[in-house]
Amino acid sequence: MNIEILKKTFTKAELLTGEFGLEREGLRITADGKLALTPHPEIFGDKLKNVYITTDFSESQVEVVTPAYASVPRTHKVLEGLCDIVNNEIGDEYFWPQSMPCDIPDDKDIPIARYEGEAGKASMAYRRGLVERYGGKKQLISGIHCNFSFTERFIKKLHQAARPEMSFKDFKDQMYLKMVRNYLRCRFMIIYLMGCTPALHKSYIPNCVQWLEDVGNDSYVSVDGVSIRNSSCGYKNKEPLFPRYDSIAHFTEDVRRFVAEGKLSAPKELYTQIRLKAKGVDNILESLEEDGIKYLELRTIDINPFDKCGLAEIDLSFLHHFMLYMLIRKESDYPDWQQEAMENEERVAVHGRGRELTLLKDGKEIRFRDWAGEILAEMEEVNRQLNLGYEAGLIEMAKRVDDPKNTYASRLAALVKEKGYIQAHLDIAKGYKAESHDTRYLLRGFEGYELSTQILIKEAITRGVPVEEVDPMDNFIGLGKGDKKTYVKQATKTARDNYISVLAMENKVVTKKLLAQKGIPVPAGVEFTTPEQGQIFAEDYAGRPVVIKPKSTNFGLGISIFEKGGSAQDLMAAIDIAFGYDNTVLMEDYIKGQEYRFLVIDGVVEAVLKRVPANVTGDGKSTISELVEEKNKHPFRGVGYTAPLKKIVIDGQTELYLKQQGLTPESVIQADQTVYLRGNSNISTGGDSIDMTDVMPDCFKQVAVKAAAAADAVFCGVDLLIEDYTDENSSYGIIELNFNPSTDMHAYPYKGKERRTGEMILRALGFIEER
Amino acid sequence: MNIEILKKTFTKAELLTGEFGLEREGLRITADGKLALTPHPEIFGDKLKNVYITTDFSESQVEVVTPAYASVPRTHKVLEGLCDIVNNEIGDEYFWPQSMPCDIPDDKDIPIARYEGEAGKASMAYRRGLVERYGGKKQLISGIHCNFSFTERFIKKLHQAARPEMSFKDFKDQMYLKMVRNYLRCRFMIIYLMGCTPALHKSYIPNCVQWLEDVGNDSYVSVDGVSIRNSSCGYKNKEPLFPRYDSIAHFTEDVRRFVAEGKLSAPKELYTQIRLKAKGVDNILESLEEDGIKYLELRTIDINPFDKCGLAEIDLSFLHHFMLYMLIRKESDYPDWQQEAMENEERVAVHGRGRELTLLKDGKEIRFRDWAGEILAEMEEVNRQLNLGYEAGLIEMAKRVDDPKNTYASRLAALVKEKGYIQAHLDIAKGYKAESHDTRYLLRGFEGYELSTQILIKEAITRGVPVEEVDPMDNFIGLGKGDKKTYVKQATKTARDNYISVLAMENKVVTKKLLAQKGIPVPAGVEFTTPEQGQIFAEDYAGRPVVIKPKSTNFGLGISIFEKGGSAQDLMAAIDIAFGYDNTVLMEDYIKGQEYRFLVIDGVVEAVLKRVPANVTGDGKSTISELVEEKNKHPFRGVGYTAPLKKIVIDGQTELYLKQQGLTPESVIQADQTVYLRGNSNISTGGDSIDMTDVMPDCFKQVAVKAAAAADAVFCGVDLLIEDYTDENSSYGIIELNFNPSTDMHAYPYKGKERRTGEMILRALGFIEER
Repeated sequence: MNIEILKKTFTKAELLTGEFGLEREGLRITADGKLALTPHPEIFGDKLKNVYITTDFSESQVEVVTPAYASVPRTHKVLEGLCDIVNNEIGDEYFWPQSMPCDIPDDKDIPIARYEGEAGKASMAYRRGLVERYGGKKQLISGIHCNFSFTERFIKKLHQAARPEMSFKDFKDQMYLKMVRNYLRCRFMIIYLMGCTPALHKSYIPNCVQWLEDVGNDSYVSVDGVSIRNSSCGYKNKEPLFPRYDSIAHFTEDVRRFVAEGKLSAPKELYTQIRLKAKGVDNILESLEEDGIKYLELRTIDINPFDKCGLAEIDLSFLHHFMLYMLIRKESDYPDWQQEAMENEERVAVHGRGRELTLLKDGKEIRFRDWAGEILAEMEEVNRQLNLGYEAGLIEMAKRVDDPKNTYASRLAALVKEKGYIQAHLDIAKGYKAESHDTRYLLRGFEGYELSTQILIKEAITRGVPVEEVDPMDNFIGLGKGDKKTYVKQATKTARDNYISVLAMENKVVTKKLLAQKGIPVPAGVEFTTPEQGQIFAEDYAGRPVVIKPKSTNFGLGISIFEKGGSAQDLMAAIDIAFGYDNTVLMEDYIKGQEYRFLVIDGVVEAVLKRVPANVTGDGKSTISELVEEKNKHPFRGVGYTAPLKKIVIDGQTELYLKQQGLTPESVIQADQTVYLRGNSNISTGGDSIDMTDVMPDCFKQVAVKAAAAADAVFCGVDLLIEDYTDENSSYGIIELNFNPSTDMHAYPYKGKERRTGEMILRALGFIEER
Repeated sequence: MNIEILKKTFTKAELLTGEFGLEREGLRITADGKLALTPHPEIFGDKLKNVYITTDFSESQVEVVTPAYASVPRTHKVLEGLCDIVNNEIGDEYFWPQSMPCDIPDDKDIPIARYEGEAGKASMAYRRGLVERYGGKKQLISGIHCNFSFTERFIKKLHQAARPEMSFKDFKDQMYLKMVRNYLRCRFMIIYLMGCTPALHKSYIPNCVQWLEDVGNDSYVSVDGVSIRNSSCGYKNKEPLFPRYDSIAHFTEDVRRFVAEGKLSAPKELYTQIRLKAKGVDNILESLEEDGIKYLELRTIDINPFDKCGLAEIDLSFLHHFMLYMLIRKESDYPDWQQEAMENEERVAVHGRGRELTLLKDGKEIRFRDWAGEILAEMEEVNRQLNLGYEAGLIEMAKRVDDPKNTYASRLAALVKEKGYIQAHLDIAKGYKAESHDTRYLLRGFEGYELSTQILIKEAITRGVPVEEVDPMDNFIGLGKGDKKTYVKQATKTARDNYISVLAMENKVVTKKLLAQKGIPVPAGVEFTTPEQGQIFAEDYAGRPVVIKPKSTNFGLGISIFEKGGSAQDLMAAIDIAFGYDNTVLMEDYIKGQEYRFLVIDGVVEAVLKRVPANVTGDGKSTISELVEEKNKHPFRGVGYTAPLKKIVIDGQTELYLKQQGLTPESVIQADQTVYLRGNSNISTGGDSIDMTDVMPDCFKQVAVKAAAAADAVFCGVDLLIEDYTDENSSYGIIELNFNPSTDMHAYPYKGKERRTGEMILRALGFIEER
């Protein structure tokens, strides 16, 4: 394989496309840095079934797993989303941001992951065996694994361009095996560049701790190492094992031999820096022989405490660049390359930051920095020739090579010296948790979806309900699999609702008829299709408080409200306006009161919300402008559809509205005085949302339930106007039914309890048991 | 009540609004004018439950009943629609267009209406009693009853304006009773103006026939009468009965007395020219006392053979005008007014066309023409003062009064003399039947609905499924009642389909994924959201037959087809075009072949249709323009959404298309040569629809069924491209699924069998038993 073939065969976009998947482990810890001994959170469901969030060795060790995505940025974002979920769902615990363990107890107190059933028993027995052979503390080491493959399409194209005379399977295996060999030879680079385990807590294995510098606070730091995890104090096979990588047949033959000789209890116990993965999981060797290599798993990477996901995107891009380089890189024929690479691994792990470090290359000593420079130069050539656009990564990595101070390991070592191992990581973990909390309304990696869909996907992932992205542009997803598979659009458009029910709610005339037929109070009114008919009614309604509106209203266009009634002439003028928007016009009694949104799902009022126009409350010294600026700092306030609340904008309309109150944006208002900045209560113009679920009397909730039932709706937003909700005899009326009710405003209101709408939807769809 | 109050209180629109309902009876006859002895057609369902189409006295006597509508024109149109249904659903029989019977058998052979069950037995016994008392032949006389009431709103307003001191019920009853008394006094006018029974067939009661002129052909014509039906030879009580109409209490007292004295077998046997109707049907007297008068039933009107419905719209408008006049008309205090009115009735019925006819008015003889003129003059004043716009009716009626030759009776008498009684009516009946057949695709009275909805409503009415017009502008109707009530929009949007299934079909990307997941062949293809991604695929697809289209297509905008493949550059240009219409673009393999629409309902292919571009076939002598003109005469070809096929228009595009074939609109083409006038096969541009249901092999039908099932659709239009449908191994692919499939094109294709789509829909909705 040479660079010319790649260059000739692929465009930049094709080269940047692959299948990327990430698995990140991490310990759950208490607020003082100790291993959490609580069970894996129930919300994450069955560990064996949740493909996104499960446990690894220990019950206290969360593992998040992204699906495979076509691009580096998407994969990285989804990993961040999964880490946010963990941060937000582990109560008052924290997600340990470091590969090496926190303050851990003795082996006997380390909880191994608990499983149910026969298969569960076997899993637990296997884990107990690992503790016996390797000790429990090493099992708590966490890593981040990067799965990579080319797309089928890419390999086919390359096969045709490079070696059409070979079988496709042989070509694919040969291609991946070359990458594996090169990766093993060059893995020292990744250990150096991404090593992030230069320190330990006292509670780790004493044999490992004793070689390090005691920096106080029960903390121990390596003098010039970068990755204790990749050193002999990390998690490795008892003796180095070197299966042959020249063919699949040799590889599987060697692994079978290791197992037969008792060096491994099973093929999966072979801990290598890069793993061959096959279609089959339980029968990996047979599957490799039959189906060939499906993807490669890179296992070198330490968790990066300086990134919320444990892996910086620039590093993931570099790994991709590195893998493309592995495909092209010329191989030497030096026979003992595996032993040499293993020796280099240990040297870099333990002394990577040493200025004079040398490595072995084809049996000869070479300065680490020279070899690293050589590799970066070759990668630069790859980047240039293939036009990958990976310059930023090269510049960053060159800095790390040039001066070890620029490595993560150096930065972390300094931090541990300053604060102590536990405190340094705890501060970081708390920062990430706060950050995840502040943006809990969204799901990273899925920002292209509307918030309501993000919330639903987040809930599904949290609970391990498989999510299929059927058409992201349309907020169209699939949930579950097999017989339980169902589809959802915009969070509440589902198979539970029948089509005509939706169409009935979409049409105000129909809605009113259905409600009235079921005896539910709607504003009394009339509909008409000509101004002549309207004239008749204008006379009838003259003097009465009345609302005149086109049949289908959008954003309130064409609506006139006569709170105190109007003359027949006034009403007729309003009717003419309304006819500008629709062929049918409604004239209804105006009902005084506040509008409340009742979210009804499956016959239950799940949430009630009040919307209040944009406003600020004074402190006696700040101007309105300053108060707005302060209020806009709320993490829920954003722009467009990216946040549950919108930033308040002081525009001409606001100024006009203030002027009517004798105010300007520069006015200072009294403490506790609330000033409204506009007349409308839309969230989209900076309005506040206030949860009222727990204070709304049951009688009004029953009205909402009956209204939804009248339209035969499972998901329904009922808009109720109530004059005084604290009075059960208050006058009220239903304004409209919404078949695609907004859920994010209930999930993340400005004030009041957050309602878990994703859970409600999953329950209605049968993924969560009924209450 | 005086005209001033009406004028002051109401607008013209209010005065023209009321509740109008019509009931029209008519005999079913054979092609030679004999009474049909077949059972009431099964399709009309249970006689006791079908509120639109039932029987009257005889099994052979159809009765159609309109619901009450707010305006005269609407009511009249619906009556026409009902008559069309009867004409089209009685096989090779005809709907007798005359009140007096056709060629009828002796009493013993006249089939009385058959009913099931206990209540049915009673109904049949009652009918047998009628035969005994009145003879069977009179029972076959048919009439047209006109039900009239003011709206509740109208009466309330009038009550407040005129007599607020009275109770509402008393006011209402007094108002209607005045109208009844005036109507009884003036009914001779209606008998004269609308009388249409001046002739008889020999088979009618000999006593009646013998007084008439024998005009041959077993036909007998009255010399100067207008309405045998309203004469003593019509259907009347054995002796004249005159209940008091000054109060409800007196009226019910008198009727109860008639029953007690054996003059009536039941209150309903009181045959008066105008009936008081109450809310209660079975307890009419009690209900009158309790609830008051609900509406009035005018029973004077003969069936008008000169109108397809048996009543001209101008006559119905006049009746409304007449009723308003009855409300205002001053009453005399002449005591024997009922006897006098009865005498006048007989005089007009028997000698109405006589030049010298006099009537009795308050005990004095008055020339009929003078009194009629007086009434018309007063009505003209009402029309002028209230601005009703009923001038045309007044002019027409004045003509009838001025010269008896202008009456229906005269016109019909002439016709009977010319052709004979049976043939004259038979010709008319056949003409109406042909007319109904030619416009069988629509439902008169419901023309505001899309054709597909008209077809569904027509089927529902035919079978007696109650139809609620929920929102006509939206084609939104209710069907059935009680627990079976369900709603339908645009004929196939129903509660049977779930919402997400519809949304899946609406989205081409989602549809393809669902189909592919179920292993159904779709054109292989790719989707992409950026031109950069598109570039990759453009290279892959270069040279292959391919279709490039925006994700959501409307009317084919933005679609490019490369039947013979294109260069990557060509494809890229097409991709750029498609991105002008949507953010997602699809590129798919082009499948060669003809497109067929499969209509799948509830897992069954109910119809298959091929669409062919607008075309004409030559006769060797006509020009293309002439052939188009001839083809456009087909009754199904209309303009807009009013007909199942559209008229072919020769426009610039057609001329261009012809030019490419070396033709112009003036070219004469060979016999049997077909020339296509445009490239697209849309029905909307004059294309032909050809039913293929019976010739399409089952294998392709199974594909369509599987496709609909993949989307979980109950109503689904599956568009299948098939290279050669006669070859079961032909290549094929699904183009798209339609959740609101057009049904009218299957119901009324240009060629091939008409498919009863209304029936299919009603079956899917549970109103017809499954096959």
